[in-house]
Amino acid sequence: MRQTNDLSRMISHTTSIRVRYAETDQMGFVYYGNYATYFEVARVEMLRSIAITYRSLEENGILLPVVRFQINYLAPAHYDDELLIKTFIREKPSARIKFAYQTYRGETLLNEAETDLVFTDAASKKPMRCPAQFSNILNAHFSN
Amino acid sequence: MRQTNDLSRMISHTTSIRVRYAETDQMGFVYYGNYATYFEVARVEMLRSIAITYRSLEENGILLPVVRFQINYLAPAHYDDELLIKTFIREKPSARIKFAYQTYRGETLLNEAETDLVFTDAASKKPMRCPAQFSNILNAHFSN
Amino acid sequence: MRQTNDLSRMISHTTSIRVRYAETDQMGFVYYGNYATYFEVARVEMLRSIAITYRSLEENGILLPVVRFQINYLAPAHYDDELLIKTFIREKPSARIKFAYQTYRGETLLNEAETDLVFTDAASKKPMRCPAQFSNILNAHFSN
Amino acid sequence: MRQTNDLSRMISHTTSIRVRYAETDQMGFVYYGNYATYFEVARVEMLRSIAITYRSLEENGILLPVVRFQINYLAPAHYDDELLIKTFIREKPSARIKFAYQTYRGETLLNEAETDLVFTDAASKKPMRCPAQFSNILNAHFSN
Repeated sequence: MRQTNDLSRMISHTTSIRVRYAETDQMGFVYYGNYATYFEVARVEMLRSIAITYRSLEENGILLPVVRFQINYLAPAHYDDELLIKTFIREKPSARIKFAYQTYRGETLLNEAETDLVFTDAASKKPMRCPAQFSNILNAHFSN
Repeated sequence: MRQTNDLSRMISHTTSIRVRYAETDQMGFVYYGNYATYFEVARVEMLRSIAITYRSLEENGILLPVVRFQINYLAPAHYDDELLIKTFIREKPSARIKFAYQTYRGETLLNEAETDLVFTDAASKKPMRCPAQFSNILNAHFSN
Repeated sequence: MRQTNDLSRMISHTTSIRVRYAETDQMGFVYYGNYATYFEVARVEMLRSIAITYRSLEENGILLPVVRFQINYLAPAHYDDELLIKTFIREKPSARIKFAYQTYRGETLLNEAETDLVFTDAASKKPMRCPAQFSNILNAHFSN
Repeated sequence: MRQTNDLSRMISHTTSIRVRYAETDQMGFVYYGNYATYFEVARVEMLRSIAITYRSLEENGILLPVVRFQINYLAPAHYDDELLIKTFIREKPSARIKFAYQTYRGETLLNEAETDLVFTDAASKKPMRCPAQFSNILNAHFSN
């Protein structure tokens, strides 16, 4: 029997990011919009860990724009904090690929977020199915 | 009797923002994280339009950190586009104040978003009720 | 005969920019790197004021990357400040165009800066002379 | 006989930074203003390498605002590039501390820059001499 929380059937990765001064605001917190950039770094590093470079996707004419982003902020991050961003792909992608994120400082969960991205043909700007170079790698992680 | 669509019982405001080169990415689109900044500008200008300056709130010891942000991207914005951001407060705030946003380029809806912010005492960093200077002004808009 | 201070032989323009929360840092100042963006806005608005849109330059295959930037900071800007950026072209451009900037808050000079940009052919990525559509307009300002 | 380019009498450090998508612009280059942030990271990491954390300086009431920044751009950086930023302190600091930077991608020098920062008392906002905790460490590098 299949279960949605079958941990063997998802991809996860942890990326470390140190907060830059430029990313703080006068409240002394990381500005709320900057997490979008952190999650971009986190998902690119996750993909690199499974031998997919986002740069080479673009060089092959495939764009991955974000079509949905949502985040719940539980606690702020501060300057020079070392953040650990846990990134998850929990579902096999089709035309859309979903990433989930949890940002930690030590044991403290600072926020939880999700982004949906859509495989897009760079020439036509139309959505396309997950390309084979990508789905072959992902299938190895999701099949059993 | 209909309530939810009672347009007399909400606050709305439109802010114009021109896309800066710094805000584009190599896809030629506004980077997805930059809308958080646009919405910050939009809600601050909405408050200014009803005689509340966010700066003076902070000077009076009240912070308004964002605790939730969600956005659906329908179409990209480009360099030098003149964006119109429609901002709405649809519910009377308590400790939490909700803003909704729609970004337009001409007639085209580019995205829809929401942010929740929490009135926070700057000294104690604890949530607090909507301060009187604020709620008095808002009450005038929401009462009938 | 005086030449260097002949005010009739230069182009100047003033742009107003309000400081965004995202642009502050935890010192409570505008982060020092953000002025590069303000000056980008200032020079684009100056060009627009003399009927040159940077966007249309790019659409015609001409890029204008910055090759030099220098700034002296005299006093910080703060959140919600309304900054006035005075922009100057003091020399007729060749392959290179020089802009000078002064940032004011009211009567207070906050910083002085310069950028040099180079007309670049988008296809070959090689420097090129100032294009005619541009130099014709500028000549009208610099000739007497 | 003393020489100004006595390499034993300066501090140097190399920091690696990978270009984020958010940092590119529609020219496909790193936006020119983003190097200010890269150099902030580079000088903070240099200080960390000699056991000075900028964060603890601030916690001890010492600010280090930038008062001068200048950069010459020789070649652009692109998305996902791994940049090496070489940072130098060539002179013993007084109230002012000068950092020089060279950004490389492999063997290619992309730009050269300098920043001057001023030790500032956080309470009075007045310049101050380089604090002892700092100068003691630096003296060990500059004395012979």
